[in-house]
Amino acid sequence: MIYSGICRKPMSLSLSLQQRRKQLAQLFDDPVVLWSGKALSRNFPANRYPFRANSHFLYFAGLQLENAAIHLENGKLTLFMDNPPPAATLWHGEMATREQIANTIGADEAYPLKELATRITDIATIPVQDRVTHQEQCQLLGRDLPVAKALKGKDLDLAQAIVSIRLCHDENALAELKKASKVSVKAHKAGIRATLQAKTESEIRSAMEGVIIAHNMTCAYNSIVTVQGEVLHNEDYHNPLQSGDLILADVGAETDSGWASDITRTWAVSGKFSATQRDIYNVVLAAHDACIAKMRPGVEYRDIHLLAATVITGGLVDLGILKGNSADLVEQDAHALFFPHGIGHLLGLDVHDMEDLGDVAGYETGRSRSDRFGLGYLRLDRKLRPGMLVTIEPGFYQVPAILNNPEFRQKYQNTVNWERLAQFSDVRGIRIEDDVLITNNGTEVLTAELPNKIAEIEFLMAT
Amino acid sequence: MIYSGICRKPMSLSLSLQQRRKQLAQLFDDPVVLWSGKALSRNFPANRYPFRANSHFLYFAGLQLENAAIHLENGKLTLFMDNPPPAATLWHGEMATREQIANTIGADEAYPLKELATRITDIATIPVQDRVTHQEQCQLLGRDLPVAKALKGKDLDLAQAIVSIRLCHDENALAELKKASKVSVKAHKAGIRATLQAKTESEIRSAMEGVIIAHNMTCAYNSIVTVQGEVLHNEDYHNPLQSGDLILADVGAETDSGWASDITRTWAVSGKFSATQRDIYNVVLAAHDACIAKMRPGVEYRDIHLLAATVITGGLVDLGILKGNSADLVEQDAHALFFPHGIGHLLGLDVHDMEDLGDVAGYETGRSRSDRFGLGYLRLDRKLRPGMLVTIEPGFYQVPAILNNPEFRQKYQNTVNWERLAQFSDVRGIRIEDDVLITNNGTEVLTAELPNKIAEIEFLMAT
Ligand SMILES: [Mn+2]
Ligand SMILES: [Mn+2]
Repeated sequence: MIYSGICRKPMSLSLSLQQRRKQLAQLFDDPVVLWSGKALSRNFPANRYPFRANSHFLYFAGLQLENAAIHLENGKLTLFMDNPPPAATLWHGEMATREQIANTIGADEAYPLKELATRITDIATIPVQDRVTHQEQCQLLGRDLPVAKALKGKDLDLAQAIVSIRLCHDENALAELKKASKVSVKAHKAGIRATLQAKTESEIRSAMEGVIIAHNMTCAYNSIVTVQGEVLHNEDYHNPLQSGDLILADVGAETDSGWASDITRTWAVSGKFSATQRDIYNVVLAAHDACIAKMRPGVEYRDIHLLAATVITGGLVDLGILKGNSADLVEQDAHALFFPHGIGHLLGLDVHDMEDLGDVAGYETGRSRSDRFGLGYLRLDRKLRPGMLVTIEPGFYQVPAILNNPEFRQKYQNTVNWERLAQFSDVRGIRIEDDVLITNNGTEVLTAELPNKIAEIEFLMAT
Repeated sequence: MIYSGICRKPMSLSLSLQQRRKQLAQLFDDPVVLWSGKALSRNFPANRYPFRANSHFLYFAGLQLENAAIHLENGKLTLFMDNPPPAATLWHGEMATREQIANTIGADEAYPLKELATRITDIATIPVQDRVTHQEQCQLLGRDLPVAKALKGKDLDLAQAIVSIRLCHDENALAELKKASKVSVKAHKAGIRATLQAKTESEIRSAMEGVIIAHNMTCAYNSIVTVQGEVLHNEDYHNPLQSGDLILADVGAETDSGWASDITRTWAVSGKFSATQRDIYNVVLAAHDACIAKMRPGVEYRDIHLLAATVITGGLVDLGILKGNSADLVEQDAHALFFPHGIGHLLGLDVHDMEDLGDVAGYETGRSRSDRFGLGYLRLDRKLRPGMLVTIEPGFYQVPAILNNPEFRQKYQNTVNWERLAQFSDVRGIRIEDDVLITNNGTEVLTAELPNKIAEIEFLMAT
């Protein structure tokens, strides 16, 4: 991590970018070109999805430049982009020129995009998501580029170098990440406060995303705002709210330079958790708190996942839902019946940071996904280091596809007290997710301002 | 247009789709395959932009099915799509099967997507926007498909047949379009009402899009909410509001089946228009009202554009900004100094309906874009017909790129009273846009519930 020492003024963008280039130059010798990508259209060309630059480009270029590329070599930055055509002024107003942008980001040189062809020999790169730019990349390089999660040779070396830099956030990144989490906290508070007046999921979503829009940010990912918390990636918002329901909201903001946050809260539509909802919620919260208490540099994130699994199974034993002791139950993957995802993931420019690279960022070199039911979904398997930002998001879900699976019913026949479980039918899905920064000697929870204790959430709803 | 006669109950989706297929069969003999397209990713595969199906597919299939295709021949509908993989249930919950969907949309047969390869001979199609699907289309057909605006041969014949059907909306479409306009009207009212408390453009945007989200709709296009109304496609929302500013908001909702609305209003940040803002606003409103009063079947839309130009130049002559008479001024394109876009466009499943096809929908066969400064931006040049939905959106803008252009300064040296114009410097951009349905004997303004008179807007702001 880069600290500016006693200087309180945040480091300028161009200085931060310079530091990042220096780090890269220390780890990687060959020249590098990174592309920003192109805007995508929604059914006809002029109706465009909001543009989002490729995150690796963004990390080293700092600005959401459309259809641009940067050449990096020995810490030197060359920008390639075209000036806006004169006619664009009518539709888009005055736009920054290449020279102005080069100045803002501290580029050493700047050229029109067509000059890129002359600087492409022997470079390493990361392919972008949009197919049009990907094909341009292949054509310019004169070689086939696989998708970003299947890189080989020096492109893979480059990816590993970038990962090792992006894994630990610098001062500029942290300032942005804190902005994003601050607005996301506000969004969740607004959602909680809007609930007693709301009639549908979409009205709560509106209150939450409204805060993000009002702060001129975007959603870092498609919001989940649902009474069907057991559907893990639910992106429907049509359900009416009913008084016994829990609402699960997984909503996060992203700053204009692309830095993300990722928060989940679960609360009672009526303003009061039922006794059963309260019991399970407190099990999930205990897991959440236990994980954060254990996190510090040197700890294996996988052990944090297993700790969550242990606390959850222990809590479910105490509630009479599971039978046995938690260590054995976790070894049998019984936790995954109710907690079938990982405890969290890296967070940065992407909400699943660097997931375009497959597991190159998430998994320490030499490690790979487990085929265990209770570990296979873990997105991060590394030792924690200062400057890493990760989510901690334990959950409890009653997923019909899991709990009604005959194989599981058989395997866990004597592990689950199915009759007791039936008494918790008003708990469909609970998740509590916070963004946790690893510091030199422990953690800083960036989203700590948002309550997660039942009493505090209920108080917030009523005010 | 299809009317269900005295039956008050809206026609079922499958019946509407059947009618649409019958219309197509009457106009086009060859078999047709239409693809829905694939979701696009935002920087890494799992972070997807909200999926929007191709509009031609949507028109005949009715549902936003991802990665599906339909085969149409002699009024018969065959659906090609894969069932969700079993593992998808965990993440996405129970999803409709191919058979269930086939039943909902009234498909005669339904097969897995791979069967499509057997039904592809001699078909006509329309290429979709996303490059991945476009390439699959080319590969399956064994021929190069250009982009949708450059079709040839039987694909172009198909496009023309579809255009002639989609130009005039049926009962099902109108019901959806009215839903979209109703929510958009609410959104604008919320934006107007939020202004006196708002400090930035983004806060007004939040109030407006919040309504759209609360009704579980999406934005039909990227909202424009700006104090810089002279930047025609302004998609920034960062400006603070200042008391002398006008705010221009062009915001429209889209229903879940893809039908759009498109509304613009302009109002004073302070709650009170200045005298100069009032004068120009009333010129634009007079143009708006004059256009709508003239519209009925048989009228040329181009004449409506020229009428708007005439009313605007006439009004500017009365205000002392232009010199001469309005007919001459329009012939000299002087209107385009301040109104440099067309009076409107088709509205339907796309906010610029069928603009993927270039001008095939907008321009009557045999007509093409004018190279006149005052006509070239016109997106629609057809005789109006019952069932057509168009926007009427006159405006007045002080665009530096136009007004400071030395060529124009020279050409219109004696046409514009530049000193008088300088007194209107607090009018940067005004637009008033409504959605106008052509009926059998006139028009129905779908967005009429939203005030456009200054007194009514000022009243709304204060309440
Ligand atoms: Mn997360
Ligand atoms: Mn419009």
